[in-house]
Amino acid sequence: MENSNIVIDMDQAYDESIEKIYDLLEEKKYFRCRDELLKHNEVEIAEMLVDIRRKFDLQRMVVLFRALPKDVAVDVFAELSTDDRLDIIDIITDPELKYILDELDFDDMIDVLEELPSNIVNKILDKTPKSERKLINTFLKYKEDSAGSLMTPDYINLSKNNTVREALDHIKDVGLDSETIYTCYVLDMGRKLIGVVSLKSLVISPDNTLVADIMHDDPVVAHVDDDQEEVSELFTRFGYLAIPVVDNEFRLVGIVTVDDILDVIEEETTEDIERMGGVIDTQDREYLDMSVFQHVRARLPWLFLLMCSYFITGGILQTFEDAMSAVIALVIYMPMLMGTGGNSGSQSSTLVIRGMATGELELRDFIKVMWKEIRVGVIVGICLSILNYFRIVYLDHNPPLVALTVCVSMILIVIIAKLIGSMLPMLAKKIGIDPALMAGPMMASITDMISLCTYFIMAGLFLHI
Amino acid sequence: MENSNIVIDMDQAYDESIEKIYDLLEEKKYFRCRDELLKHNEVEIAEMLVDIRRKFDLQRMVVLFRALPKDVAVDVFAELSTDDRLDIIDIITDPELKYILDELDFDDMIDVLEELPSNIVNKILDKTPKSERKLINTFLKYKEDSAGSLMTPDYINLSKNNTVREALDHIKDVGLDSETIYTCYVLDMGRKLIGVVSLKSLVISPDNTLVADIMHDDPVVAHVDDDQEEVSELFTRFGYLAIPVVDNEFRLVGIVTVDDILDVIEEETTEDIERMGGVIDTQDREYLDMSVFQHVRARLPWLFLLMCSYFITGGILQTFEDAMSAVIALVIYMPMLMGTGGNSGSQSSTLVIRGMATGELELRDFIKVMWKEIRVGVIVGICLSILNYFRIVYLDHNPPLVALTVCVSMILIVIIAKLIGSMLPMLAKKIGIDPALMAGPMMASITDMISLCTYFIMAGLFLHI
Repeated sequence: MENSNIVIDMDQAYDESIEKIYDLLEEKKYFRCRDELLKHNEVEIAEMLVDIRRKFDLQRMVVLFRALPKDVAVDVFAELSTDDRLDIIDIITDPELKYILDELDFDDMIDVLEELPSNIVNKILDKTPKSERKLINTFLKYKEDSAGSLMTPDYINLSKNNTVREALDHIKDVGLDSETIYTCYVLDMGRKLIGVVSLKSLVISPDNTLVADIMHDDPVVAHVDDDQEEVSELFTRFGYLAIPVVDNEFRLVGIVTVDDILDVIEEETTEDIERMGGVIDTQDREYLDMSVFQHVRARLPWLFLLMCSYFITGGILQTFEDAMSAVIALVIYMPMLMGTGGNSGSQSSTLVIRGMATGELELRDFIKVMWKEIRVGVIVGICLSILNYFRIVYLDHNPPLVALTVCVSMILIVIIAKLIGSMLPMLAKKIGIDPALMAGPMMASITDMISLCTYFIMAGLFLHI
Repeated sequence: MENSNIVIDMDQAYDESIEKIYDLLEEKKYFRCRDELLKHNEVEIAEMLVDIRRKFDLQRMVVLFRALPKDVAVDVFAELSTDDRLDIIDIITDPELKYILDELDFDDMIDVLEELPSNIVNKILDKTPKSERKLINTFLKYKEDSAGSLMTPDYINLSKNNTVREALDHIKDVGLDSETIYTCYVLDMGRKLIGVVSLKSLVISPDNTLVADIMHDDPVVAHVDDDQEEVSELFTRFGYLAIPVVDNEFRLVGIVTVDDILDVIEEETTEDIERMGGVIDTQDREYLDMSVFQHVRARLPWLFLLMCSYFITGGILQTFEDAMSAVIALVIYMPMLMGTGGNSGSQSSTLVIRGMATGELELRDFIKVMWKEIRVGVIVGICLSILNYFRIVYLDHNPPLVALTVCVSMILIVIIAKLIGSMLPMLAKKIGIDPALMAGPMMASITDMISLCTYFIMAGLFLHI
């Protein structure tokens, strides 16, 4: 602490430092750069290295990374993104890589190994003690984005017959290498999980209490094959710091900690939001780090597909070409009806998708949701129609029958769009597609089509064209 | 633990229990209901009570709540939503409320008090010891959604001259009433924060080590007035379990713990997603708990506003009425151009909003983003145009000049939409509006207008109409 009497704005301190580093790098003063970096913690150093790569190049980033003291380098490495890690690994020497891998937390090491080409992994595993190699191989086999791929085997295990004193002594011995010591796990002889005990209970209980007496014997667990989204739901729901992961025989195979879950939540939210916005998975890459072509690849497929869906819309319009020529005024209200339909639908899908993501809405609520959307649609549709009627008749001076056509279409379109917007994500979930994919652009195209059909069918009815 | 050899599916156990409770409630067997509830933890009991209220009524929910053992009732109460808490408070007796408030964690108690009408709060405070009353009043003054409103004063403070043994003994004495004991705070005589020390360091260090030697003396802190979104960013960035909150003089006033942040993240994400979907803040109410009129209130204003924006679009179309009558084929490609414009824009705003939310994109990246979007827009626009040209000429058998009009418009529209989609959220942030409000529907209306203008201007140029 700089012993200042005022709160230092962290962002400001960061900005000042990075500007200084840029200047020093221009003058090639690497050692002073390193000293400036070392004023910050590992998270900030990692962020600074990324900034340096963007501003200058990979080389300069790696030079500075290698200039860091070894223990700091390991912590910084753990904070970097996949791409940055791979770039660094490409350049550093084998002994440097070996050192980093040895010192990383087990779950971070597995992350790195998963990213490396298999020949490099094999080279590394050759130099690893046999027992650890076996463990690594087991972990490498878990599906990506499963609880198994998130967890670490570095947990503290206790016996239910331990006293509190024995437990604390054990923690003192092995605690340094554990991912967390705040929740300890009680296993039976067959490594089955029979309870959890918090370090808090241990610290505040008398020394001779038995672990069995203070352990919680019906813990919330995740299964190795559970998807990471389910695991993060458990954390949000129960607010724990760590959750044990068990296999089919209820044997404890690892634990997932809350700090890793914060990253998972960010990743999953980004994926959801991107899908709702019609962007194909950016693989957690940052906007500025993606090349123009990576951006094109993430966007073109959806745009292309959706554009093709408008070929159908165009076809529908073509069949109504005569109607449009007869009453060109109809065309004027087309964008409004399509737009309002799209917006109504996206409101409904937003609410339903979010409800499903936070675990509130289930598939069994299908009918309830449908019924609610119909009632909301009727009210909203009528409100919007009333305004429209007056506008069309008194401001645009169009015949009342045209106004009636628009207004009745509006009510129907809002109701239908709300139904589609809410049902589509639920149906998607039912057949195992991510609901977020079905919202946004996809839903907009479908409602556009239906809006147009509804509109021209109403025109046919009311205007006899 | 049911001592089973297989993993019990938690959701399945929950579903079976709740069905059983429904049946028991039908038969008015309240005591057996309570026993069934008590097989679960507080989070699940709270969820079950909500289910019961939805299936039956508030009365039955409150009857069961009051039947719970007092200590369980307090924990369950802490897990309920604002609305449910208020409903329960309305019905239970004053002594029951007093008991719950006394037993709640400090931050939960403040949450409840904030929600209550001031006459009830005053009645409660009258019965509270003076020292605590002062503290409560201070906390009630912090702005909603600020670090101050999230924090709890129940932290452990140590002196830097304590030995590890003394520190652990102190924790043993006061730990039970603390929100967390896993991070302890080292204060000087003026209550200024001079360092933090983790329980892990304390437990694994020799007894006679001084706290000063193992404490971390440059901790990440939040300021009482910081917005909760900034606080949650600190957690995601650094992965800590708790973050200290300080006032202007760097005095420690409270701590925020990671479990509360998980809720903040969910709340903020929901708000963002809803705004992008054109829904007005639902105040964290659940979909099914909102009445039809609450749904209408959350949706009608935006739909109304956006519909009015289409009045302008309609006006634009009206000026091109002659052009449309002349070449009715132009109308057929209108929805496609508007749709593709909207989709292109929403892709860009999605990426930019998410980039700003995760802290990757800053306002200073404005030019970089613009330049990237232009290049992406050109490539995407050209790709889509090529397909379109062939379709219009060879499938729809329209004149090449019509195809050219559509294709050139397409390229321009995609570029403009991408620029608007990316710039709008950044400009919104610049002037202090939530970027999410500017994405989705708002952006779609603006691009619709611009798409139409571009299209008909191109039609004028190429088709001389």
